[in-house]
Amino acid sequence: MNFVQRLQLVQRKANSLVCIGLDTDITKIPESLRSLENPVLEFNRRIIEGTKEFVCAYKLNLSFYECLGEHAWQTVRQTLACIPEEIITIGDAKRGDIGNSSAMYAKALVDDYHFAATTVNPYLGGDSVAPFLKNADQGAFILAVTSNPGAKDFQYLKVKGRPLYEQVIARVKKWNTQKNCGLVVGATRPKELQRVRKIVPDMPILIPGVGAQGGDLKAAVRFGCDRHGELAVINAGRSIIYASHGDDFVGAARRETMTLRDQINAIREKYF
Amino acid sequence: MNFVQRLQLVQRKANSLVCIGLDTDITKIPESLRSLENPVLEFNRRIIEGTKEFVCAYKLNLSFYECLGEHAWQTVRQTLACIPEEIITIGDAKRGDIGNSSAMYAKALVDDYHFAATTVNPYLGGDSVAPFLKNADQGAFILAVTSNPGAKDFQYLKVKGRPLYEQVIARVKKWNTQKNCGLVVGATRPKELQRVRKIVPDMPILIPGVGAQGGDLKAAVRFGCDRHGELAVINAGRSIIYASHGDDFVGAARRETMTLRDQINAIREKYF
Repeated sequence: MNFVQRLQLVQRKANSLVCIGLDTDITKIPESLRSLENPVLEFNRRIIEGTKEFVCAYKLNLSFYECLGEHAWQTVRQTLACIPEEIITIGDAKRGDIGNSSAMYAKALVDDYHFAATTVNPYLGGDSVAPFLKNADQGAFILAVTSNPGAKDFQYLKVKGRPLYEQVIARVKKWNTQKNCGLVVGATRPKELQRVRKIVPDMPILIPGVGAQGGDLKAAVRFGCDRHGELAVINAGRSIIYASHGDDFVGAARRETMTLRDQINAIREKYF
Repeated sequence: MNFVQRLQLVQRKANSLVCIGLDTDITKIPESLRSLENPVLEFNRRIIEGTKEFVCAYKLNLSFYECLGEHAWQTVRQTLACIPEEIITIGDAKRGDIGNSSAMYAKALVDDYHFAATTVNPYLGGDSVAPFLKNADQGAFILAVTSNPGAKDFQYLKVKGRPLYEQVIARVKKWNTQKNCGLVVGATRPKELQRVRKIVPDMPILIPGVGAQGGDLKAAVRFGCDRHGELAVINAGRSIIYASHGDDFVGAARRETMTLRDQINAIREKYF
């Protein structure tokens, strides 16, 4: 089973395009957890337990773990162990290095932590991305148009009359021989998302930026999905995991996840 | 003291532009070390002890540590503790994320590990780079032209008649308000290096790719230095740290480092 098929399977089974960003900030989790031995792990474990029927994926932005020091890598591993096998796990690492160094990063993220998918920065080109694509059942979402203000510094520069991100996408299409490439396009970029989906009708698109970043949910679903209303992976982080800062955080996250799933499914019903 | 001044100081004191890449691969270090509790740390400690008078910097490519698992982050910390204060330590992490996530990476690399400098990927633009530039005495080397084959996929694409990497450099010049920006240009790209030095006469340039990758040392020195014959940081990794695979590895690394320093200084004498 290649990565696209894995994603389709879980999206159909859960009837959900929701991905939860487990970008857990120790300063924002409920007071009552902070005295535990590993508050971040306990928080993640409970969020996963309360939301796993309603999602197709969990995404861990590794910056949130790297900054906690050495033991946090163990937390990443233990968090992944809490996630049911069929749900897609995304190591949002945005790595990218020269070939042999990228192979080392892939050794960690792909072989050791065994993320179902990673995010990869394209600037260093083909040999930097290849190690993340070595296994057909593990995908890589390559950054195309990001959700942040700095996206405009380079990603929109015109190359032969077309923005740089389209050059990236043209290359990614060539790298996609095993059907395990995806793209990252921010929900704050609805016009670009529409354009990208036309260029890659069958490729998974990871869409961060709904929720706290204020991206357009309707556009994310309408323009991000393939013709079957699938293969958009819509990530929400803070708006779900911090839906409540009190001891009812699991219930609040659960309700928020169901609401987001239902909103997305209503938009899918309308357009697909 | 800003980052440029720090670099100048150590380059003058050591009379050296050599940076050693501590990209330590556990499968390549001498047999006799492998039974120790932490072979990588012991290898690094001895290499540093044997070479520290002859270098201006040590660079740790974090991919080599990330792939060893959790305890390797402790090895990074302990390795840094072996390096004398005045020598520049470079966290070669090639990170880059949206603003708040980049801030988390910087929290780890800049505030916690306290690298003197980091390497940063420019694709996500200004807000992704800014957290690595917050302290004037800590620098960021932004990827411009990398040494690998994939460099040609995007970095050379023409934007308004000039390659993309020149657009990157134009932005980096604007970000350099605290004199702590640098660039990465591979030694395998001598023509581009010459061009880059003309555009940024006063900026540090980190030049990987001499040694095992076969880059042109003469060009790296002649074109990479500023008008005083300084501010090029010439990185060699494998050719120094694996100069011998036997128990004489420290002596061999020491000799190789002195030789490289002397070769570089001979070229500096000739051209500056």
